[in-house]
Amino acid sequence: MKAVVLAAGKAIRMGYKPKAIEKVAGVEIIGRTVKLLSPYVEEFIFVIYRKEVEEYVRNLGVKFRIVKNDMPEKGNGYSLYLARELVDERFIVVMGDHVYSEEFINKAVKLEGAICDRKPRFIDISEATKVKLKDGKIIKAGKEIEDYDCVDTGFFILEKNIFNLFDFFVKDKEIKLSDVISRAGVKASFVDGEFWMDIDTPEDLKRANKLLIKVSVKGYEDGMISRLINRKISTKISEILVNRITPMSMTIFSFIIGILSSAVAVINLGIGGIIYQISSILDGVDGEIARASLKTSKIGGYVDSILDRIVDFTFLTTVSIISNVFIPAIFAIFGTVMVSYTTEKYKAEFKESIYRIAKFRHILRYIPGKRDERIFLIMLFCLIGYVEVMFWLISFISFFRFFTTLFLVIRHRAESY
Amino acid sequence: MKAVVLAAGKAIRMGYKPKAIEKVAGVEIIGRTVKLLSPYVEEFIFVIYRKEVEEYVRNLGVKFRIVKNDMPEKGNGYSLYLARELVDERFIVVMGDHVYSEEFINKAVKLEGAICDRKPRFIDISEATKVKLKDGKIIKAGKEIEDYDCVDTGFFILEKNIFNLFDFFVKDKEIKLSDVISRAGVKASFVDGEFWMDIDTPEDLKRANKLLIKVSVKGYEDGMISRLINRKISTKISEILVNRITPMSMTIFSFIIGILSSAVAVINLGIGGIIYQISSILDGVDGEIARASLKTSKIGGYVDSILDRIVDFTFLTTVSIISNVFIPAIFAIFGTVMVSYTTEKYKAEFKESIYRIAKFRHILRYIPGKRDERIFLIMLFCLIGYVEVMFWLISFISFFRFFTTLFLVIRHRAESY
Repeated sequence: MKAVVLAAGKAIRMGYKPKAIEKVAGVEIIGRTVKLLSPYVEEFIFVIYRKEVEEYVRNLGVKFRIVKNDMPEKGNGYSLYLARELVDERFIVVMGDHVYSEEFINKAVKLEGAICDRKPRFIDISEATKVKLKDGKIIKAGKEIEDYDCVDTGFFILEKNIFNLFDFFVKDKEIKLSDVISRAGVKASFVDGEFWMDIDTPEDLKRANKLLIKVSVKGYEDGMISRLINRKISTKISEILVNRITPMSMTIFSFIIGILSSAVAVINLGIGGIIYQISSILDGVDGEIARASLKTSKIGGYVDSILDRIVDFTFLTTVSIISNVFIPAIFAIFGTVMVSYTTEKYKAEFKESIYRIAKFRHILRYIPGKRDERIFLIMLFCLIGYVEVMFWLISFISFFRFFTTLFLVIRHRAESY
Repeated sequence: MKAVVLAAGKAIRMGYKPKAIEKVAGVEIIGRTVKLLSPYVEEFIFVIYRKEVEEYVRNLGVKFRIVKNDMPEKGNGYSLYLARELVDERFIVVMGDHVYSEEFINKAVKLEGAICDRKPRFIDISEATKVKLKDGKIIKAGKEIEDYDCVDTGFFILEKNIFNLFDFFVKDKEIKLSDVISRAGVKASFVDGEFWMDIDTPEDLKRANKLLIKVSVKGYEDGMISRLINRKISTKISEILVNRITPMSMTIFSFIIGILSSAVAVINLGIGGIIYQISSILDGVDGEIARASLKTSKIGGYVDSILDRIVDFTFLTTVSIISNVFIPAIFAIFGTVMVSYTTEKYKAEFKESIYRIAKFRHILRYIPGKRDERIFLIMLFCLIGYVEVMFWLISFISFFRFFTTLFLVIRHRAESY
C-alpha cells in the first residue's frame, strides 16, 4: 500500500518550526509515523509546504514522492486532493502532526475507512474532531458536534473514488478532510483507547513526550519496587533525557553508577547501598528511552542484561569481602544470577518470554525476588548494617524464585506434551 | 505426498523377529523412518507380511493404509506393485529394513528418482545394490556390478507410470525393485555421505546402533576434554543404554551423581573430584540418547542446563567451605554461570545459537572454559589438593571466556547494524 502523509502545515500556533519535524520522545513526529508504517507501506507520498520538512523526509531512507502544496491555507482536504494522481486503488492517509503509538498503527493498518476512537484517553476532547455515525458510516464530523459516537484519529484507509467528491469542494476557500469524509459517508473502523495525539501547542508536545514514555514501560516484567518507586522516578528522567541521549549511552551510564556504588560501599556501606538503588532506578531509563524512541535493539537488551549481572556480582562480592561474610554471599550471588538464568534459558529454548504465559504472569509477578526488589532490600540492610541477614534473605528469596520458575516450567511444559 | 514403506520381509536371516520392528538407537527401524518422514508425508502405505509389523504400525499415530503381501518371496518389486492403486502421481518409496539419519531424510525428500549415495561411508559395500548411470539415469542396478557410479539407498521418489513396466515382470518368480528401476531408466539424485544403512544381520543392527549414537554427537559445542575423553566414554555408555532408558531419566541420574560428588568431596576431595568428572561424562549421555532416538525435547534441554548449573554450584561451594577458601570461589562460581549466561542470553535475544555463527565457532572452540574443560581441571586440582590455585584458575578462564563472548557479540552485532 501507499501512504499519503499530510504535512503541509504553516506552523503558526507552534512558532516557526513545522510541527511535523518537532521531536517527541526522541523522534520527529513524521519520522515516527513513517517508521511505524514502513513494514506495511511500499511508498510514502508527502504533501508538504515547508522546505525543512522536505529536507527531513528526504533523509528518512524510505521510498517516497513529494507533492508541494503552495496554498496550505486551503486545508488538509486540498492537500490530499493534490496527491490524487499518485495513489493506487486503496491507500493510507495520515496526518503529519499526529503522534501515534506502535500499538495504534499496528491495529489501524488492518482496518478500513476512517479509523476512529470510541474511548479516547490521551487527547483534549474539546479540540478533537468528533464523528457522528449512522449504520457504521460517518454522517457528520467536526469539532462542534454534541452527540458524537467517536473521535477521528487522523488515520484513514481510503479508496480512490473519494476524489470524485472533490468537485463539490473545488471552489471552497478551505477544504477540510473531515468534511470530505462525512460527505462521502466513509465507513468507520475502531481502534479504541490506544495512544495517539493531535499536536497543536507546545504543551501538547510535552504531554505527548511524557505519555509516550509512560506507555513504553513494560509493566509485566516489573517487580513491586519498580511499580511503586523506580518507575515513577525513571520515567521523569526519561522524559527529560529522551530527546538528548541514546539508549546505549544510558545503559553505560547506569552501569558506571552501579560499579561506583561498590567503590563507595567500601568507604560507607549505607551510601553505597543508596547509590546501588539509584543505579537500579537508572537501569529502567535505557529501556524506556529505547522503546519510546523506537530504538530498541537486541544488542541493547543483550548488553544491558549482562551488565546488570556484573553490577550485582560486584556489589555483593564487595560487601561480602568488606564484611567478611562469605557463605551466605555465595548463595546470594548464585541465586541472583539463576533468577535471570531460568528466565533467559526459557526464552532461548522456547522462543517466547516466560512472562507471556498468562498463568505464569501473576505468579511470577507476586513472588518476590526480581532485581528491583532485591536491590531495594539490599539497600535497606546496608543502611541498617545487617549484612549477614541480608545475604541469607537474598539467598532465600532468589532460590525460592529460581526453584519456583523451574517448577512452573516443568509442570507447564509437561502438560503440553 | 504419500509414502510406500516396503516391510514385507520374512525375517529369516535375523531370526524370528521382523527386521522392520527391531530397535536401533531406541526406536524401531520402521518407526524412525516414519517419524523422520512425517513432516513431509500425509499418508503412509505399509506393505507388510507379518502381523507383528501390522500391530506396530497401527500404533504409530500417523495416517496410514495397510497392504498385505502374502507372497513375500515374490520380492520388494512385487510389494510395491501391490500398492499401485493407493498412490498419487508422485510418491516416496522406502525400504522398511533401512535405517536413515535425519540429515539423510531431510535431503532426500527434496530430490527425485532413485536417491543414490556416491560416497557411502557406513555400509558393507559387498552387500550393497550398486548402480550404473548413463546421462543421469540408471541403466544397471545390482549387487554384482563392478564399475558402478553410486549405491542405491533404498529411498525413491517415483512417478505412477513406473507401474506400466510391471507387465514385463508379472510372470517372474521374484520381482526386484532394482530391476524395475533400471529397466525404467529412473533418474538418479544424490545424497552423499550421510548416515544410512541396510540391515541384514544382527551385526548390522549393532553397527547401526553404534553409528547413530556417533552421528548424534553435537561436536561443535564440545570442549577439548569432551572431544578427547568424555565423548569416547559417553558414546559407549549410550550405545548400551539407548534401547533401555529415556533421556530424562539419564539427566536425573547424572544430576544425582553430580550432587553425590559434592557429598563425597567432604570426605575425600580427590575421590569427590573424580566422581564430579564422571558426572561430566554421564552428562553427555542424555543428549546423545535423545538425539539418536529422536526424543530431543526443549524441556529436556531446559532442565539439563539448569541442573548442570546446580551441580557446578554445589561442588564449588562445597569445596570452598571445606577448604575455607572463599574469595576466589566467589569469582569462580559467578564466572562459571556467566559462561553459560552469555551464550543462552544470545540465543534468547537473537533466536540462534552462538555456535552457528561461522566466525565464532572456531574462536569459541579454541578458547578454554567450557564445562567439560573446567570440570577436568577441577578434578586434577582436587587430586593434588591445590584448591586456592584451582579457584583462581577457574575464575580466570571463566571470566576470560565470558568477556570474550561479550566482546565478540558486541563486535559482530555492531557490524550488522
